[in-house]
Amino acid sequence: MNTIKNTLAQITALDPKWQSRAQNHLDRLTKPPGSLGRLEEIARWFIQVRGKFPPALPQKMLFTFAADHGVTDEGVSAFPKSVTAQMVHNFLKGGAAVNVLARHTGAEVRVVDIGVDADFKSLPNLIHRKIARGTKNMAEGPAMSRQAAETSLKTGIALAEKAMQEGVTLLGAGEMGIGNTTAASAITAVLCKAPVNKVTGRGTGVDDAALAHKQKIIDQAIRVNQPDSKDPLDILVKVGGFEIGGMAGLILGAAANRIPMIIDGFISTSAALIAVALKPAVSSYLLVAHQSVEPGHQIALQHLGLSPLLDLDMRLGEGTGAVLAMGMVDAAIKIVNEMATFEQAGVSNKTEPA
Amino acid sequence: MNTIKNTLAQITALDPKWQSRAQNHLDRLTKPPGSLGRLEEIARWFIQVRGKFPPALPQKMLFTFAADHGVTDEGVSAFPKSVTAQMVHNFLKGGAAVNVLARHTGAEVRVVDIGVDADFKSLPNLIHRKIARGTKNMAEGPAMSRQAAETSLKTGIALAEKAMQEGVTLLGAGEMGIGNTTAASAITAVLCKAPVNKVTGRGTGVDDAALAHKQKIIDQAIRVNQPDSKDPLDILVKVGGFEIGGMAGLILGAAANRIPMIIDGFISTSAALIAVALKPAVSSYLLVAHQSVEPGHQIALQHLGLSPLLDLDMRLGEGTGAVLAMGMVDAAIKIVNEMATFEQAGVSNKTEPA
Repeated sequence: MNTIKNTLAQITALDPKWQSRAQNHLDRLTKPPGSLGRLEEIARWFIQVRGKFPPALPQKMLFTFAADHGVTDEGVSAFPKSVTAQMVHNFLKGGAAVNVLARHTGAEVRVVDIGVDADFKSLPNLIHRKIARGTKNMAEGPAMSRQAAETSLKTGIALAEKAMQEGVTLLGAGEMGIGNTTAASAITAVLCKAPVNKVTGRGTGVDDAALAHKQKIIDQAIRVNQPDSKDPLDILVKVGGFEIGGMAGLILGAAANRIPMIIDGFISTSAALIAVALKPAVSSYLLVAHQSVEPGHQIALQHLGLSPLLDLDMRLGEGTGAVLAMGMVDAAIKIVNEMATFEQAGVSNKTEPA
Repeated sequence: MNTIKNTLAQITALDPKWQSRAQNHLDRLTKPPGSLGRLEEIARWFIQVRGKFPPALPQKMLFTFAADHGVTDEGVSAFPKSVTAQMVHNFLKGGAAVNVLARHTGAEVRVVDIGVDADFKSLPNLIHRKIARGTKNMAEGPAMSRQAAETSLKTGIALAEKAMQEGVTLLGAGEMGIGNTTAASAITAVLCKAPVNKVTGRGTGVDDAALAHKQKIIDQAIRVNQPDSKDPLDILVKVGGFEIGGMAGLILGAAANRIPMIIDGFISTSAALIAVALKPAVSSYLLVAHQSVEPGHQIALQHLGLSPLLDLDMRLGEGTGAVLAMGMVDAAIKIVNEMATFEQAGVSNKTEPA
């Protein structure tokens, strides 16, 4: 618990002087002021979190946390639970969507087993942090113990710390876990005080009947467990997942180490809900990659006061949106570092007479 | 006129078999069906336009057409007219936003003087296609002659043809021209039969009084010239611009040569309005890069039935959105070519029992 407490204490509000510093430079570049919209916003954000000008092009790393969910016993997913482990092999071989998109934008992908229901001892490229072989069925009782929840947070915190030591300056959080939209919906319902049917979607693609069943199971999990909406750790214990705890820890560790952090879709946003509930200042360290198709995502983002960068009708997870967004961060930093100023280019600024 | 007629005749409806071919492959990849959303849509579109499977990674080229506008005499822009020529120099030196973003996504930028009010004879890297030193003031009469409008279209068609011969498989259209949101708004008002105040925005950043004046000038230009909404070329003659004609030609030439075409923001969309009015089948060859802040853009896109890929609050033009979108097209093609199938990865598909 000490690590978590220390990490929260290290997270400070960002200094607005870096925003002004970035803005002054952006306004000298050969374009109408503000005309690059969110690219300018990303540049200001990155410079402010890093506290450095000019900014260095980011060294980019994505962690994909994999874990299983006992609640899949209730038939809440379109895919069998075994797919989580199969996809871990696929990630390590580089054949999944997140690998392809990470190669495209030049991000390194690290895969973390934080709770998959499979034996991976023989896999050397996997980061072995298994807490248990999947959570327990939240429809019947808590998904995990309080100690397991703390371990999941500390795991993410330690990974962020290590990434910082390796020189990483842009982090992303992604996940793989059959059944985890169920956990994310439950967390969102409790933390945002939203009706379950407003925050529950089709996940990997369940039909109408299965969607109604999934909502019923989430309602049951909340009724059985009575998570305390004022205690973020209790929510993780009762209706969370190991990968969600791992991502929440990564988010906290990133902020503690002044690393700009990209969250992906609905599941990683549910982790952000927990991290921000633990320490509200965390929200200014976050960039939301994209708007997921999952209905709970918008509600969670409104709660966080964050606006997604992309809206590509994606609902895959893994960190696919996060690595695409990393390409946009690179673009924003290149704008700052490579564009000519009005003075350099001999272009008339609108504030000067022609 | 012969070239234009022949080009229009070469543009055919796309064969739906390529969409199915692409979709069949996408559904075998290790992800829930459809879960990569618009990346999958882009892949289907690119494969269908090229008529090839598997698709080759695109060779990307953006043309930035530069021209001046006589209507700037009326004070419709926040920047002086001289900025068009200054920015052409900036493009050629690689210091503009479009250069930075094109380097980022690996696209080649070619700059075309199709009507800048400056002497560029000494610039070897510029594509010299000057029709005149700017259009005439549309508030007083037609912006250009019918012959000049035809020349602008033919110029774009010829550039697309040459790009095809050089092996280009993905084209983008961008522009630079102080005053050209005035022309784009006028074209959109006439072709989409929309009120001028609904399609007119602040361009590079005029204030409230100047915006009202700009609307008055556009109203006057339409009243004075009475463009025939059923004759796209007449609209280009009366209230268009040379760069808009050039982009409309490039769009037609791309479709005639089966090159997928990315249009950028509001101005290039006004060129697409003209191209699609000349040949409706053209619209399926187009991908709209982003939603511009300019209010007329949404109305023009609704008219075309196209949905923008990105929404980054950008309003710079040059082709900045188009080159960013080219990065997304690369990502989509890599998904098709590099992702493992369920079979290859040994991952259970949801249609199969666990």
